[in-house]
Amino acid sequence: MAETNKGRSEEEVARAFVNHYYHLFDNDRSSLFTLYRSTSLLTFEGQKIYGVEDIFYKLKQLPFDQCRHLISTVDSQPSSMAGGCGGILVFVSGSIQLHGEDHPLRFSQTFHLVPLPQGSFFVQNEMFRLNYG
Amino acid sequence: MAETNKGRSEEEVARAFVNHYYHLFDNDRSSLFTLYRSTSLLTFEGQKIYGVEDIFYKLKQLPFDQCRHLISTVDSQPSSMAGGCGGILVFVSGSIQLHGEDHPLRFSQTFHLVPLPQGSFFVQNEMFRLNYG
Repeated sequence: MAETNKGRSEEEVARAFVNHYYHLFDNDRSSLFTLYRSTSLLTFEGQKIYGVEDIFYKLKQLPFDQCRHLISTVDSQPSSMAGGCGGILVFVSGSIQLHGEDHPLRFSQTFHLVPLPQGSFFVQNEMFRLNYG
Repeated sequence: MAETNKGRSEEEVARAFVNHYYHLFDNDRSSLFTLYRSTSLLTFEGQKIYGVEDIFYKLKQLPFDQCRHLISTVDSQPSSMAGGCGGILVFVSGSIQLHGEDHPLRFSQTFHLVPLPQGSFFVQNEMFRLNYG
């Protein structure tokens, strides 16, 4: 992620991350791997996936090629008290329109962004769920 | 929270927390304050609330007295790499049935549980959203 946390509130970082993540997901999904590290965890519809390589493979082989995310809400908080990890929790709700499907699917998703020494963030934690009505 | 993390996986802690939290919410909401500390953050439908006292006041004055949560999914992950904070992220989806309403409302909710020295956990972060269809 190109953005840094210098002088930016966690809300600004969260909003920039959300724009970046879903833009990549919808337009250049294979570039998403740049957001993860070897310690990253993804839970996708209950399935736990560990590390950048397996996460990359999982995202690449999802059973739809084209989709478009519509974001409804973005909430964010620092993940720790003063002196903690300096991470940011990002909580997203929205819908995903799959190519060829009539109706979008509601989803919610949580990210935990952890800072890198150079000031950018990577995705340490991610959990995704479709919200069935 | 009475449970400790000694010998328990993060999934067991998450499940025990979820049972405890929603039981208190539905049956003895004023006891929820025991789960928070002065550093806790709650974002409720986009409104940010800081610290155990204001969170307690917010939960107490929600515009419904009786409700029942039905939990659909519980996902959990450690919130940090080895050597980090030792926290647990909990991601819940479900529905809430308000007394006197015909239809339950879908919701999703994220918690970040942080360990206390005596082995129990408190809620450092919490974010709640209704999922409108």
